[in-house]
Amino acid sequence: MKIGNQPYRTIALAEDGSYARAIDQRKLPWDLAVIDIATLEDAEKAIKSMVVRGAPLIGVTAAYGFYLSLRKDASDAALKKYYNRLLATRPTAINLKWALDSMMEAVSPLAPEARAAAAMKRANEICEEDVALCRSIGQHGAEIIKKLAAAKKSEEPLNILTHCNAGWLATVDYGTALAPIYVAHDAGVKLHVWVDETRPRNQGAALTAFELAQHGVPHTVIADNAGGLLMRKGKVDMCIVGSDRVTATGDVCNKIGTYLKALAAHDNKVPFYAAFPYTTIDRALSDGDAIPIEERSASEVTTVIGLTPEGKPGAVTITTSQAANPAFDVTPARLITGYITEKGVHTKL
Amino acid sequence: MKIGNQPYRTIALAEDGSYARAIDQRKLPWDLAVIDIATLEDAEKAIKSMVVRGAPLIGVTAAYGFYLSLRKDASDAALKKYYNRLLATRPTAINLKWALDSMMEAVSPLAPEARAAAAMKRANEICEEDVALCRSIGQHGAEIIKKLAAAKKSEEPLNILTHCNAGWLATVDYGTALAPIYVAHDAGVKLHVWVDETRPRNQGAALTAFELAQHGVPHTVIADNAGGLLMRKGKVDMCIVGSDRVTATGDVCNKIGTYLKALAAHDNKVPFYAAFPYTTIDRALSDGDAIPIEERSASEVTTVIGLTPEGKPGAVTITTSQAANPAFDVTPARLITGYITEKGVHTKL
Repeated sequence: MKIGNQPYRTIALAEDGSYARAIDQRKLPWDLAVIDIATLEDAEKAIKSMVVRGAPLIGVTAAYGFYLSLRKDASDAALKKYYNRLLATRPTAINLKWALDSMMEAVSPLAPEARAAAAMKRANEICEEDVALCRSIGQHGAEIIKKLAAAKKSEEPLNILTHCNAGWLATVDYGTALAPIYVAHDAGVKLHVWVDETRPRNQGAALTAFELAQHGVPHTVIADNAGGLLMRKGKVDMCIVGSDRVTATGDVCNKIGTYLKALAAHDNKVPFYAAFPYTTIDRALSDGDAIPIEERSASEVTTVIGLTPEGKPGAVTITTSQAANPAFDVTPARLITGYITEKGVHTKL
Repeated sequence: MKIGNQPYRTIALAEDGSYARAIDQRKLPWDLAVIDIATLEDAEKAIKSMVVRGAPLIGVTAAYGFYLSLRKDASDAALKKYYNRLLATRPTAINLKWALDSMMEAVSPLAPEARAAAAMKRANEICEEDVALCRSIGQHGAEIIKKLAAAKKSEEPLNILTHCNAGWLATVDYGTALAPIYVAHDAGVKLHVWVDETRPRNQGAALTAFELAQHGVPHTVIADNAGGLLMRKGKVDMCIVGSDRVTATGDVCNKIGTYLKALAAHDNKVPFYAAFPYTTIDRALSDGDAIPIEERSASEVTTVIGLTPEGKPGAVTITTSQAANPAFDVTPARLITGYITEKGVHTKL
C-alpha cells in the first residue's frame, strides 16, 4: 500500500539477501523509520519490541529471521536453536509457529550447505504468499461490504468498526481486516471506519488511522469505550477485526478488547466478522480459553506514547498505581457472524 | 476521606460564605491544587472544564454556584439566569438539575433580600445530605460485598471491577460505587479492585487509583479493553459503577464504556451493580436511549495528559486523525443485577 503516494511493504529482503528491512512501527504515525534485520538477535528484538507486529507480519519476520540466522551456522543444532528462540518471542500468534514450521520443513531435509539458499527461497515465498492471501481476503470481504452497503436505506456511508490494527501494517501488504475495506473503497463503495484507539499501545489511533488516512478512507478515531454506544445508536453497520489465533471450533483470539466489541455487536445485531489467513487456524485447539495470553509490561498501560506539544516523540505517565496488561482476549464462536479467509467467507470453520 | 492522612472533602464553603474551595481534579494524582469559586462564571467554568466532576459533586457545585451568584443580584430574573446557565454546563447528569431545582424551590418564594441566606443554608444542606447519602450507600453496598466474600471458596481477595471514578472525588465524601468498597475494606474484608483506566479522560487511572491508594485499598489499573478477558478467566467477582442518570425503568447512564463491561458481566454471570443517590433517578424517563449524551471535545481522545519523564504535567498527541468523543453510554436494566442507593439494595426501581 502507499504512504504519501509511494508504494511500501512492511518488510522486504535486501537484493543481496543479507538483511531484511522493516518499517519501525513504534514510530508511526510521526516518523517513517526503517530497521535492518540481519541476525537472530535483530529478528528477536524486532518482534519482541514490536518494531513489527500483527500476526501475519510476525510470521514473515520470523521466516526471514530464521533464514538470516542460518547463513552463519546451518547445522541441525543451530536450526533447533533459531526455531526455539524465534518461537519464544511472542506466545499468542499461531502464524509465528506456522511460519517457523514451514521454514524448518523446507530446510531440515537438506544438507547444511544447501540450507541457506532454500531458506531464503522459502522465506520469500511465505512473504509473497502473505500478500496474495491478503489480497484474496480483501476480495472476499469486499463482497460482504458491497451487499451491506447496497442494502442500506439512507445515503449515509456504510459504517465499519475495527479494533487494533489488522491493516497492511500487520501483514506484508493489504492487511486482513482492512483489506476488504480497501478493496470496497477502491471499488467506489461509500464507507466510513470507526477506529478503536486500542489501548494500551494505541495501534488503532497510531497505525490504522494512519493507514486509512494515507489511502484516503474516511475514518474517525474513538476511545475503546465508545463502540457500544455507537452500536446502540445504530451508527455501526458491521465490525471487522483480525485474529492472532483461531481454534478449530471458531473461537477468535485477537487484541484485548475484541470480545467486548463482539458482545456489543451481538447485543445490537451488528454483523461481526474476523478476517485472517487460513494458517491462523490452530486445528489442535478446540477451546479458545486454552490459547496462551501474552502478559506484556505494565508500563504499556501506565505510560502513553505520542507527540509532545513541541512536536517531538514523548511519553506521559497516567497513574501512580500498579497495572496489569493482558494483550489478547478470546471471542467465542457464538458471537462471530463469519470468518473471512483467502478461501472465502465461512460461517463455520 | 483522606489524602496523606489529612481528611479532605472535594468542595467546601469558606467560613465567611464568600466562596467555595474545590480540589482541582484535573491535576490529580500529580498535584493537589485547589480552586476558589466565588462567582457564576467560576462555577460554570469549574463544572464545564471538569475541575469538579462526578454527578453528585456537579450537583453540589451547582448549588454553591447558585448561592454565590445570587449574593450580588437575587432578583427573579437573576435567579432564572443562574439556573439556566448552570443547568447548561453539563447535559447528562440529572443531579445537576435536581440540585438547581432544590435551590430554586428554597429561595424563589422568599423576598429577594432573604434569598442569599436561605440559599447558603440550602446549599450547605445539599452538601451534607450528599455526605450522608454516600455513607449510607456504602453501608448497604458493603453487605453485598461481605456476602460475596464469605461465599468465596479460595483464600483470594474478592475482586471488584469499577469503571471511571465514582469515588469520594465524584461526590463530597465517601463516593457512590467506591463507598461500599471503603466500608467493606475498613470492616476487614479482603478485597482487590480492578480499576478501568477510563479513556479518554483516564479518571480511573488518575482519580480512582489515587483514592484507593490513599486509603490503602489493593488495586490494579487496567486498560478499558481488559475487563472482558478478566471476567472470562474468573478474575472478577463483581462490578460496581456509579451513574449520572437512571431511568424509572432502571436503565443506567454512566461513563462511556460502562455498557461494554455490563455485557461482559452478564455473559460471565458476574454480578453488576450501579450505586447512586436516589436523586439520580429521572422519573420522567422510561427509555435510557432518550438521555442526552454529552459529546465532548475530540482533543480529549487525540491527546493524553499525564506526567512527563521530567516530572512535569504534560500531554502527548496519539493520532493525526479526527476523533469523536461521546462521554456516556446507557446500560439497559436487563444487564443490571441491582441498584445500591441510600435506601437499600433494589433489584427494580
